[in-house]
Amino acid sequence: MHKMALPDYRALGYKGLLVALDGAVVTIIINRAKQRNTFDNTIVNELIEVFELCDRDDRVRVVILTAEPTAPAYCSGADISGGWNLLWVPEAEKEGEHAHRDTGGQVSLAILNCRKLTIAAINGHAAGVGMTGMQLPFDFRFVWEGAKLTFPFVRRGIVPEAVSTYLLPRLIGHSRANSLLLTGATVSPTSPYIRDLYHQILPTREEVYPAAKAFADELAANTSQVAVAYAKGLLLHPGESAEENHLLDSRAMKLLGSSRDGAEGVLSFKERRLPKFPDTLGKNLSSWYPWWRSPNVKHCQSKL
Amino acid sequence: MHKMALPDYRALGYKGLLVALDGAVVTIIINRAKQRNTFDNTIVNELIEVFELCDRDDRVRVVILTAEPTAPAYCSGADISGGWNLLWVPEAEKEGEHAHRDTGGQVSLAILNCRKLTIAAINGHAAGVGMTGMQLPFDFRFVWEGAKLTFPFVRRGIVPEAVSTYLLPRLIGHSRANSLLLTGATVSPTSPYIRDLYHQILPTREEVYPAAKAFADELAANTSQVAVAYAKGLLLHPGESAEENHLLDSRAMKLLGSSRDGAEGVLSFKERRLPKFPDTLGKNLSSWYPWWRSPNVKHCQSKL
Amino acid sequence: MHKMALPDYRALGYKGLLVALDGAVVTIIINRAKQRNTFDNTIVNELIEVFELCDRDDRVRVVILTAEPTAPAYCSGADISGGWNLLWVPEAEKEGEHAHRDTGGQVSLAILNCRKLTIAAINGHAAGVGMTGMQLPFDFRFVWEGAKLTFPFVRRGIVPEAVSTYLLPRLIGHSRANSLLLTGATVSPTSPYIRDLYHQILPTREEVYPAAKAFADELAANTSQVAVAYAKGLLLHPGESAEENHLLDSRAMKLLGSSRDGAEGVLSFKERRLPKFPDTLGKNLSSWYPWWRSPNVKHCQSKL
Repeated sequence: MHKMALPDYRALGYKGLLVALDGAVVTIIINRAKQRNTFDNTIVNELIEVFELCDRDDRVRVVILTAEPTAPAYCSGADISGGWNLLWVPEAEKEGEHAHRDTGGQVSLAILNCRKLTIAAINGHAAGVGMTGMQLPFDFRFVWEGAKLTFPFVRRGIVPEAVSTYLLPRLIGHSRANSLLLTGATVSPTSPYIRDLYHQILPTREEVYPAAKAFADELAANTSQVAVAYAKGLLLHPGESAEENHLLDSRAMKLLGSSRDGAEGVLSFKERRLPKFPDTLGKNLSSWYPWWRSPNVKHCQSKL
Repeated sequence: MHKMALPDYRALGYKGLLVALDGAVVTIIINRAKQRNTFDNTIVNELIEVFELCDRDDRVRVVILTAEPTAPAYCSGADISGGWNLLWVPEAEKEGEHAHRDTGGQVSLAILNCRKLTIAAINGHAAGVGMTGMQLPFDFRFVWEGAKLTFPFVRRGIVPEAVSTYLLPRLIGHSRANSLLLTGATVSPTSPYIRDLYHQILPTREEVYPAAKAFADELAANTSQVAVAYAKGLLLHPGESAEENHLLDSRAMKLLGSSRDGAEGVLSFKERRLPKFPDTLGKNLSSWYPWWRSPNVKHCQSKL
Repeated sequence: MHKMALPDYRALGYKGLLVALDGAVVTIIINRAKQRNTFDNTIVNELIEVFELCDRDDRVRVVILTAEPTAPAYCSGADISGGWNLLWVPEAEKEGEHAHRDTGGQVSLAILNCRKLTIAAINGHAAGVGMTGMQLPFDFRFVWEGAKLTFPFVRRGIVPEAVSTYLLPRLIGHSRANSLLLTGATVSPTSPYIRDLYHQILPTREEVYPAAKAFADELAANTSQVAVAYAKGLLLHPGESAEENHLLDSRAMKLLGSSRDGAEGVLSFKERRLPKFPDTLGKNLSSWYPWWRSPNVKHCQSKL
C-alpha cells in the first residue's frame, strides 16, 4: 500500500453522506432524508470511497453506517423515480448486458472487503438495497424494533441484488432466506424469519446508534486490528474443507502468535488488565494476506 | 422449449396423485391414504412428471404438495413391505452399484429444479422420504403443529437419502441437522431442532392446506414469474464467492430491469397499485438462463 | 485396516486424560483440574490417539468427551503460561512459517474424522480451544446452563483457530458466528448467539454427563455403525451440488440397503422391535468409502 495523507473525514465534502472519525470509530450518516434516504449514484460512489479509506487508514478500527433517527427511513431502496434506467451506465451499455455492474453489489463488496469491523445501525425502515447492500455485508447489525423491513424484489419484477442471494443464506440459512427473498414480505426485526440477522434489537430509533457506538468503542479499544483482519479473512475465505481451513488458520496463528499483538494478548491476560495492541494493518500485515484470489469484477470482460 | 399442449391437470390419470390447477396454483394431493401415503414407484414417476409439467407450463406460478388431512400420515416414508429391494431397478443392477439412482433423490431434483414457487403443506405425520424428498426441496413448508416428524435412517441401517445431507444443513445449519439426521429422533414442529425449517406452523391439520393455498394465491397474483425463476436460480447457484455472485446478480438485474416485468414493477410502485406482470418463462427467459452446469444424473455412467 | 489388538482404554496410561469403555460408549475425561483443564501438548497427543483408536475399534459406537464437574472449568483454553511459544514445534520452525500445524486443529480433525458418533459434555466454563477444538468438531454438544463461554481470540491478538472459522458458521450460520468470533464476548448457553450450537442445556453441572451418557447408550444400542459412518461422511463431504449429492447418497443407499444392517432395519421395523445391527466398520465397509480426498495436512510442504 502506497503512502497517503490521512483523510480528514469531516472534510471529505460528500453530498450524500456525513462522515466523522471519533477515536478509532468512523460514523457514516446517510444524509438524504428529504429523499427518504434512497440509494443513488452519489451515495454509491461516496460509500465505496469511504469504506476503502477506512480499510486503509490505520487509525480506524470500526466503521458504523447509520441514518438520522428522524429521517423517514434508514434507507428506502434505490431511487427509481426514473425507472431502473437510472442504474444503467452508458459505457457498460455499449459493451453488452454482461458488462453491467449492479451498484448495490459494488457497495456490498466494498463493505465486505473492508478489513475493519463494520456495523449497520438501522434506526428506521428499510427496503430493497436498504436491506441488501446496506445491511448484509456488515459484520454486525443493530436495529430498531419498530423498523419495517422488506426485500421486495420478486414483487417489483427484478432479482434480489447486491450479493444478497450469496450473503443472506450464509448469514441465517436457506430456510429463512427463502421466507424473505422469495416472498417479498414486510417483516419486523423480531420475526422468526429475520431475527437471527440482528446482533441487537432496540426499542426506540434513538437508542440504535448509541448502542452501536458503545459496542464499537469497546471493540475498538480491546481488539487487535490485525487479529480482526485475519479473523474476517478466514470467515470469508475459509478454504474448501476442514483440512484446508486447518492449514490456513495454522499459518495465521503462527504469524499472529509471533507478533507484538500476540505477545500483548498473553501479557495483558497474565497481568489481568485490558490489552493495548500496537500493531496495525499498514505496518504489520504479512505479505501472505490475502491468501485468496478474487475475480476482477471491475473489468467489463469479467465473466463466469 | 418446444411447443406443447397445455396439460389438463385433472385429466392426467394418475394413480397415486390427485392434481388440479386453480388460477395459477397447482395442488397435488398424495392419494394413497390406505397405504399410509407411503412412497412407491408410481408416486415417484407421477411426481417427477407433474413437477416437470409445472415447470414448463406458463400458467403455473406456484405448486403445492399436500395430503388428505384425514389420511393416517402426510407421507410415512418408502413402501418397504418387500424390503429395500423394491428400490432397485434391474437395469441399474446390471450396470453395477454406481448405477443406482435413489428414487427419493430423483423426486427431490425434480422439485428443486422446478422454476416455480413450491410449497409442501404437511398436514400429517411424516417419516423418511416423507421428511426428505417430500419436504426439503420445497421453497416453503407449512406444517401441522401435531405432526410427528422423523428422519429414522440410522435406525434402519441406511443413509439419509433424497439429497437430504446436502439440503437440510443448508436450510437450518449443521448443528440442527445433526440433531435430526444422526439421531433418528421423532420431533414435533415446534422443537428447536426443526422449527426453523417451517414457514408456518398451524394448530390443526385442517388449517394447513388453506393457509398454504392463501399464501400461494397471493404470491401467484403479485410476483413476477421470471423474477422468481432468477431468484431461485441465484439461491441454488450463487457462484463460489461474493464476487462471482455480484457478476451473476448484476447480469440478472440488467436483464430483468430492462424487461416488461421490471417496468411494471416500477410503474405499479409509483401508481401505488398491485402489479400485473406480463412476462412468462416460456416466452421471456433469456438464453443466459441457466448459467450453471449440472452433471447428467440420469446417465448410468455419471460418476464423481 | 490392518489387524490390531483391541485397546484396553483404562490401561492406556494417559497423563492428561482418563478413558474408559462402557458397553459401546467410550468416555474421555479431561484430567487436569489443577491446571483449570488447560490444553497442553500432552492432552493434544492423547486426544488424537484416543479418537483414532475409537475410530478403528469396532466395539465403540459413541465417544463422549467431558470433565470432572468439580473442576474449575471444562477447558479454559491453551496453557499460555509460557506465551504462545509453547505452541511452536522446533522442527516446523526450521521449515518456515507455513509448516506450523495448530494443535487445536489437529485435535479438531481427529474428532471430525472419527466415524463414530461424538459428543462433547461441557459441564463447566469454556474458553479458547475449550470452545473450538473441544466443542465444534463433535456431532452433539450437551452443556451446563451456567457455563461461561468465550471465543476470546481477537482480544488476545490471535485468530480463531482449530478449524473454528470453518466449523462454527456451518453449525449456526455466519450471523451468529460473527457475534461470537469477532467480539470475543462471554456468553451463556441460552444466549441467542450460541444456543443453536447445543443439543441440550442442563440446569446443573452434575446433570450434563449423565444426560449425554444416556443419550449415547440409546444411540449405541439402536443405530447402525455403518449407517452412522456414511451419514457423517455425507454431511461432511456432500458433493458440490444437489446433483452430486444425489449420486453419492444413491450409491450409499444401494450399499447399505443391500447390507445386513439394511435388512435388519426393515425386519425390526416390520416386527415392531428394536433393531440389532450386526455390521461393523472393520468388517463391512465398502472400499468406496471414503469417496473424498483430503490434503495431507501432516506433511510440512502441504500448502494451499
